[in-house]
Amino acid sequence: LAEAMPGTPAPRPAPTSVLAKLPPGYRDWRLISVAHEAGNLNDLRAILGNDIAVKAYREGTLPFPDGAIIARLAWEYVPSAANNKVFGQPQSYVAGLPKEGVQFMVKDARKYAATGGWGYAQFNEGVPVEGVTIANCAPCHQPAKPHDYLFTEYAP
Amino acid sequence: LAEAMPGTPAPRPAPTSVLAKLPPGYRDWRLISVAHEAGNLNDLRAILGNDIAVKAYREGTLPFPDGAIIARLAWEYVPSAANNKVFGQPQSYVAGLPKEGVQFMVKDARKYAATGGWGYAQFNEGVPVEGVTIANCAPCHQPAKPHDYLFTEYAP
Ligand code: HEC
Ligand code: HEC
Repeated sequence: LAEAMPGTPAPRPAPTSVLAKLPPGYRDWRLISVAHEAGNLNDLRAILGNDIAVKAYREGTLPFPDGAIIARLAWEYVPSAANNKVFGQPQSYVAGLPKEGVQFMVKDARKYAATGGWGYAQFNEGVPVEGVTIANCAPCHQPAKPHDYLFTEYAP
Repeated sequence: LAEAMPGTPAPRPAPTSVLAKLPPGYRDWRLISVAHEAGNLNDLRAILGNDIAVKAYREGTLPFPDGAIIARLAWEYVPSAANNKVFGQPQSYVAGLPKEGVQFMVKDARKYAATGGWGYAQFNEGVPVEGVTIANCAPCHQPAKPHDYLFTEYAP
């Protein structure tokens, strides 16, 4: 009802992002693994983790402890003419511009109990993506439940 | 002549590796970029840098300052059945076991003046590869001279 009254400030929308802003220094986090998605995604990606996440990965701790944050970065999948010339054949693909935003999984067993203890967030160009909520992400991670909802394994 | 004399200890072979041992903590270094080599290499790779190297990459410093070390890690290029199932099509490739060793470029403008200031080293399973010297590597990096002999660009 309040929304309809002229002159009343619009109610603040419920916060939809698990992270209000990009975790400071996430680009400096340590590497968990790398991957290539072909198909429509057509990217090269890196999975990074904060200290708590990397420690848990390396020690095989399941479930991951509160405070663990995992970041998925992705870049354009770009054939490298320079590298191909050196190798003498078309074989080299390198990272181009960032794409598909940066996705995060944030562990808090109590706060996100309904989704296995993980909150999910996506940032495009540094800004939380409007309307993306945990419900857009968590169901898809369900098949990875035996590894605490993480598809990615640590690359030694 | 000495080698031929029985009872004389064999002369120590000249040290061929630029790095006597793996730089401590290199797996914790920050990410510069990722790549996929198809063809015979058939790998996913990550380029990491120590603090001096990452700072120079981010600030665009050329040539790289002494003390910069860059590491090239590589893993098997493995289709992920689990990820493909989630995505509904074959498109996902992840890092498997390490392969092709770990390669390093070490900057010391004076020591390696003959090869653009870079020393090169390769480790397989933690051990410097017997017989691999700078001469096995530097000529191939010559085309990247305009970027201080580095093919890889920083992935933002
Ligand atoms: C269509 C299914 C699907 C949806 C929807 C999805 N994910 Fe994922 N996610 C995956 C798969 C499969 C992987 C592993 C392969 C990869 O990285 O591409 C993954 C990987 C990740 C990773 C790296 C850790 C891991 O589990 O491997 C993060 C972080 C992540 N997703 C966050 C999110 C966020 C945030 C959202 C929603 C905004 C989301 N995901 C939506 C399927 C999905
Ligand atoms: C056949 C040509 C060739 C030879 C030989 C070669 N490299 Fe490279 N190297 C490349 C190319 C092309 C790249 C970039 C693409 C990639 O990483 O596959 C590269 C990348 C690298 C990188 C990452 C930084 C960069 O320049 O992008 C390091 C470190 C490296 N090489 C070290 C070595 C070492 C050590 C040796 C010798 C033991 C060696 N290389 C031999 C062609 C070569």
